[in-house]
Amino acid sequence: MEFEHGGYVQESNAQFIDFSSNVNPLPFPKGIRRLKERIFESVRPYPDPYMKELCEKVSSFHGLSKEEILFGNGSSELIYLSLFALKPRSVCIPAPTFSEYERASKAIGAEIERIELDENFLLPLSSIKDTEMLIFCHPNNPTGNYIIENRKDILRLNIRHFIIDEAFIEFSEDHEKRSFLSLIKEDKRIIVIRTFTKLFPLAGVRIGYMIAEKEVIERIKAFKPPWNVNGPAMVLASSFLEERGFVERTRKLVKKEREYLIKELKALGFKPYPSVTNFILFKLKEGQSSKVLRERLQSRGIMIRDCSNFSGLDERFVRIAVKTRKDNKRLIEALKEICLKY
Amino acid sequence: MEFEHGGYVQESNAQFIDFSSNVNPLPFPKGIRRLKERIFESVRPYPDPYMKELCEKVSSFHGLSKEEILFGNGSSELIYLSLFALKPRSVCIPAPTFSEYERASKAIGAEIERIELDENFLLPLSSIKDTEMLIFCHPNNPTGNYIIENRKDILRLNIRHFIIDEAFIEFSEDHEKRSFLSLIKEDKRIIVIRTFTKLFPLAGVRIGYMIAEKEVIERIKAFKPPWNVNGPAMVLASSFLEERGFVERTRKLVKKEREYLIKELKALGFKPYPSVTNFILFKLKEGQSSKVLRERLQSRGIMIRDCSNFSGLDERFVRIAVKTRKDNKRLIEALKEICLKY
Repeated sequence: MEFEHGGYVQESNAQFIDFSSNVNPLPFPKGIRRLKERIFESVRPYPDPYMKELCEKVSSFHGLSKEEILFGNGSSELIYLSLFALKPRSVCIPAPTFSEYERASKAIGAEIERIELDENFLLPLSSIKDTEMLIFCHPNNPTGNYIIENRKDILRLNIRHFIIDEAFIEFSEDHEKRSFLSLIKEDKRIIVIRTFTKLFPLAGVRIGYMIAEKEVIERIKAFKPPWNVNGPAMVLASSFLEERGFVERTRKLVKKEREYLIKELKALGFKPYPSVTNFILFKLKEGQSSKVLRERLQSRGIMIRDCSNFSGLDERFVRIAVKTRKDNKRLIEALKEICLKY
Repeated sequence: MEFEHGGYVQESNAQFIDFSSNVNPLPFPKGIRRLKERIFESVRPYPDPYMKELCEKVSSFHGLSKEEILFGNGSSELIYLSLFALKPRSVCIPAPTFSEYERASKAIGAEIERIELDENFLLPLSSIKDTEMLIFCHPNNPTGNYIIENRKDILRLNIRHFIIDEAFIEFSEDHEKRSFLSLIKEDKRIIVIRTFTKLFPLAGVRIGYMIAEKEVIERIKAFKPPWNVNGPAMVLASSFLEERGFVERTRKLVKKEREYLIKELKALGFKPYPSVTNFILFKLKEGQSSKVLRERLQSRGIMIRDCSNFSGLDERFVRIAVKTRKDNKRLIEALKEICLKY
């Protein structure tokens, strides 16, 4: 059985450079490295089921009330809980996108309507028929762009709930203008999901949150086990919220390195797509295969995301995370070597 | 809003002695204290979604195949996932017991049939009508005893699924003989849930597992988000499985201290019930109130579990965890003081 996502470095080999997982490449800031003792102390007692401290921080950060926020064991738990609670009979999902939307929809037996993105990876809204739920990633994984250009366009659709996964939005420079957060007050159908595992590199502790109108939060909360977020996650997320310098450094690094990678990929004859995130989707040359490229890079200690299993993509697409210059250079050098013989 | 479980020391005041949460009172063994660095390293990368190492350890520990095991974000997640996946229309639940069985059943809209335990806190099997699911805690929380005396008796019931929460069974001396694990091969309706947060004091990292027949595991797995167990939980659980000395020391301590507490509680005129676990339910004297007792102990820095919100119990019941002699003595001294004036 092959794992269908990136980031599965089973060997956990330190020599491997993992471009398959879209997480922040910066080292932990000093304030976080100091938390070892507090993290260790948090593994023993029950975690606060109300997550008081974090709830206050996040709600004041977004200017929302605490009743509009729900924390999850990673944003993936929140995707599943939304479907379990809201029970849509039909779900509309763009293709290509993160596969868990479809997996969770299948679990509840919803009818799934896949809408293929157009040649610019935009969602053709006119193709969306009446449906109970639209789930999309904003910006989209693996394409790296906003598939909805004007936020308010979707509000005209006859859809009961919008689940908008903004896992990668904070890497984008105009995230505040682009986010659906500011529309929650005017349209109760909007549910936004955010995570602490991409911009803040905390994939190992699983923590994300959902923002929606109070009644929606109440409905979904009824399906949530009481202590779903662990102690170390709370300690780390709470401290990361203070690290505004880290966020700024990350955005600057990602922008610069994304430009570098796109330029180099083009020079190698690949077709990288525009990205506002910390990853880049690119198309291989005629006759090349994502599987072969993945294997050849793997034998050089580099992991990339073969995108052939994304519905809507094929063997000519791969995705890479944007990392530090040293790692990015190693990837480009390896690609050059491989291309000479391929 | 008041939290309905024990263990909610919101002030996280180190001076508080928490008898309201049923977790192992022993300090971490040396091998676990050495894990600080490894835990810190586990917060960043994605956790292994297949939990290969832990799956192998736990399956070989129980002599089962890996396909018969499913890990959860605490055993509470597994209770919820079982209900989401198996969708029983009716669920039979003993009273009193852990309230999450009923909460999870309500979330999926199942009809709930509560069966009151008899005067010895045994489940009267003859009262159970045909139902799709029976969920019970074995031994039971908060009563501390096995509510089913002969395991095979339940197999005669016309019930599609048995969810048996063995969260506290490893504190019991005859746990191997009492566990339903050995019946899974002969009756596919049995689903056993175990946890790493009671015997192994890891409530903060949330990890439990479910053991059932392969096809049941497959069905439930479809509802599980991919990375539901966090990195620190895996590091800690894996190491705790090697700590057999810790388990032995715990059982010995719990037995000795349980006997001490029961003797002292009786001497104070309370009615403690027999327990095979690390907690004791006891009945107050005529006219005393669990709420008053809780408040008076709280003002002395001691937390206990007021059991008045358990369906099937009332204001005359409280539950205490079995802790170390020093803490147990402090509780008994405080109870003596309070009783003089009460």
